[in-house]
Amino acid sequence: MTTAAASSRLGFPDARDLLPELAGYISIPSVSRDGDPETMRRAAEWLCDQLTFADARLDETAGNPIVRADWLGAPGAPTILVYGHYDVQPTGSRDEWNSPPFQLTTDGDVVRGRGVTDDKGPVFIVLKLAQAFLAQEGALPLNVKFLLEGEEEIGSPRLADYVRAHAEELAADLVVSADGAMWRPTEPSVSVASKGLVSLSVVVEGAATDLHSGRFGGTVANPVHQLAALLASLHHDDGRVAVDGFYDGVCPLSDERKAEIDAVAFDEEAYRAELGAPALFGESGLSTLQRLWERPTLEINGFEAGGKYTVIPRRAVAHISCRLVHSQRPDAVLEAIDRHLRARAHPAVTVTVRPDAGGVPAYRVDGDHPAIVCALAALAEVYPGQEVLQAVIAGTLPATTLFEEALGAKTLFFSFSTADEKLHAPNEFLRIRRINEGLRAWEVLWRELARTLPRGES
Amino acid sequence: MTTAAASSRLGFPDARDLLPELAGYISIPSVSRDGDPETMRRAAEWLCDQLTFADARLDETAGNPIVRADWLGAPGAPTILVYGHYDVQPTGSRDEWNSPPFQLTTDGDVVRGRGVTDDKGPVFIVLKLAQAFLAQEGALPLNVKFLLEGEEEIGSPRLADYVRAHAEELAADLVVSADGAMWRPTEPSVSVASKGLVSLSVVVEGAATDLHSGRFGGTVANPVHQLAALLASLHHDDGRVAVDGFYDGVCPLSDERKAEIDAVAFDEEAYRAELGAPALFGESGLSTLQRLWERPTLEINGFEAGGKYTVIPRRAVAHISCRLVHSQRPDAVLEAIDRHLRARAHPAVTVTVRPDAGGVPAYRVDGDHPAIVCALAALAEVYPGQEVLQAVIAGTLPATTLFEEALGAKTLFFSFSTADEKLHAPNEFLRIRRINEGLRAWEVLWRELARTLPRGES
Repeated sequence: MTTAAASSRLGFPDARDLLPELAGYISIPSVSRDGDPETMRRAAEWLCDQLTFADARLDETAGNPIVRADWLGAPGAPTILVYGHYDVQPTGSRDEWNSPPFQLTTDGDVVRGRGVTDDKGPVFIVLKLAQAFLAQEGALPLNVKFLLEGEEEIGSPRLADYVRAHAEELAADLVVSADGAMWRPTEPSVSVASKGLVSLSVVVEGAATDLHSGRFGGTVANPVHQLAALLASLHHDDGRVAVDGFYDGVCPLSDERKAEIDAVAFDEEAYRAELGAPALFGESGLSTLQRLWERPTLEINGFEAGGKYTVIPRRAVAHISCRLVHSQRPDAVLEAIDRHLRARAHPAVTVTVRPDAGGVPAYRVDGDHPAIVCALAALAEVYPGQEVLQAVIAGTLPATTLFEEALGAKTLFFSFSTADEKLHAPNEFLRIRRINEGLRAWEVLWRELARTLPRGES
Repeated sequence: MTTAAASSRLGFPDARDLLPELAGYISIPSVSRDGDPETMRRAAEWLCDQLTFADARLDETAGNPIVRADWLGAPGAPTILVYGHYDVQPTGSRDEWNSPPFQLTTDGDVVRGRGVTDDKGPVFIVLKLAQAFLAQEGALPLNVKFLLEGEEEIGSPRLADYVRAHAEELAADLVVSADGAMWRPTEPSVSVASKGLVSLSVVVEGAATDLHSGRFGGTVANPVHQLAALLASLHHDDGRVAVDGFYDGVCPLSDERKAEIDAVAFDEEAYRAELGAPALFGESGLSTLQRLWERPTLEINGFEAGGKYTVIPRRAVAHISCRLVHSQRPDAVLEAIDRHLRARAHPAVTVTVRPDAGGVPAYRVDGDHPAIVCALAALAEVYPGQEVLQAVIAGTLPATTLFEEALGAKTLFFSFSTADEKLHAPNEFLRIRRINEGLRAWEVLWRELARTLPRGES
């Protein structure tokens, strides 16, 4: 590695001039949770149209198609695989959006719309970068393969089979993920780890039908009450998970790691105020950042039962997901929760635990890996004089473990999304300046990787 | 009171020949919880068209109109006020209905449709009875006023003001409610009491927006978990309410009352099997019927939060209703629940308790009241040789207390609905035979009341 890092030399349009094109992509409501196949395909085809320079094609799966493209015009240079996704989260209640979720809306320094920061905007940046290289230099500085999937928001249930079946053609020296997010807007950061994920639903059923709460009240167990009691049993008062075996594989926080995290500037009160929460909350004896980066969680994501009318609902359903750290095993966590709930199920109701497929373990890349070194150089070019934080993505990128297993390649998270941009929530947004910052950083990243990334035999 | 009770002398069509007309009434989706005003008005007008013989009219309120009609052609005879309602409960999930909820559907011995047994069918019986009297005898045997409201299923929020403002024109010697239900299909019953009702919602709020469960998990309190814990605290393990002060005004079950209830044939296992519940459930030391008739309840009717996606929802809402007995005071019960929840609210979330207006205390009419005696005679005519049970309506009829206060009149529950007919649930139905039984019983009731009911000065 030389000390003279590459710098940005391409010319880019102002980000605002790119917004109309991005708006077309955002307008496709590609919600993988419940979207119809035709809509998902339209989003995939939008990407193909952007990737004609790399012979883009759709590869069919049992679910949504995978977008694949290869530009391999740099013999002798390393090869990277750019990963991203074209599916988005459900909108939640449309009443809570300040503008229609699938209509890209500029609001001061940001643009708003479902998927704009997770992950349509960040992928869009890479597409525009590649097109700029080809227009201005006639070539990319290294070989680039694209793998853009349509089921990331539902846990990538078919990606593993696909990648394993196509390992040879996907072979790369590094995966660069356009999914992920910088940790906060105040300084640049590169992510060195991400949390794992498992999810499940719990269904509690009582009588065969909804019952009038007067005519039958006091004679049967109420599934809503029973489910509430089960859910309440999952945590101790301070937020620590009360499920026996849940913490298996979690390393105790070393004094060294604690000190590392404590060295990061973090204003708890500002964080609280930004979230608008009455108070921060979590396991006692740990700072907020220690909990966020190093501790697993068990969150109840949803609860559905009855309504505002006088019934004893016949069923109540809760949706739960856990973020995993270190070497927690997804299957073991699901089993521990299942055991916990079954042991506490009241015999007057039926309790069914439904684990979801697609569990993902936590992931980590070392701070001195060449990919991290190149990323730091690229960020230094765009954010001169600012320290680059090495942060943890407390979210989950299911593909990372897969790429390591199937392709033998590490994954660099390199996204110009920021974690405060209401990912998965109403009013998701992207800072417009991130588009130009991203274009320049990706340019330098590619130039640096071309110079310094060790090549495999492929 | 003579021993020679009146008998049924009118001719009635077969119930099945009346169904097409009833179907027209059922086809109007008059859901007061969220129905539009025009639809509610159509249901009210349908009633007016049936009541032209009594100069029917709509009286406007701030909510849905009240249907009023008077047939006062029996000078010297007593006057009754027939009460019922034209609004219905929401359908709940339409997937759970075996036929469209607003399309009256015959299925063997029953007809199915929202409102067919609560309360459109039972009111329909009274309309057909009055029309039969007029067609065959040219007169009713006593003076009859009608008061049919459109907000019973939302707690009759405007009925009290209306009745108090119109007390003089509503004056009657007895109110006869076509709302209510026979306790079970196996034998006739007359209801001598009903439970009271209060309801409230609990809202728990955390951050200002939904948060990504990874990027923010472990740093803030989850409103769903906090609400689950609050709800779990409302009951002891055996179902007894754990709210301090909740049972104020509830009489301990006397040995005499216990013995009375124990004398009623009641097969707990058959009851359980009919409901399809894994087991019956409730306060220890009491039989199912003792709990149903004499104990108050606190039920969670609904829970709404997030969904099956990886968020920490910003808010969680539960809907609660309580059935009251004896001299429990609605306001005191709401205050006790409010105190209980506030005392347990975690400071990392905001807990708001929203009591609903329209609380109703429990109601009782003595078993030797002339109205009960007449009702027993009418049921003996239709169900010869069968013992008539004196039962408790574990449901609530908000109007009863009001009529006693504002009109000085007791209310007789005289409905040909049956408590197992899925009131408030999907697949609500009415036994077709109840229509002819109801016609004959109402005929004898009116003739008996005309003979024996003490008249007031009005």
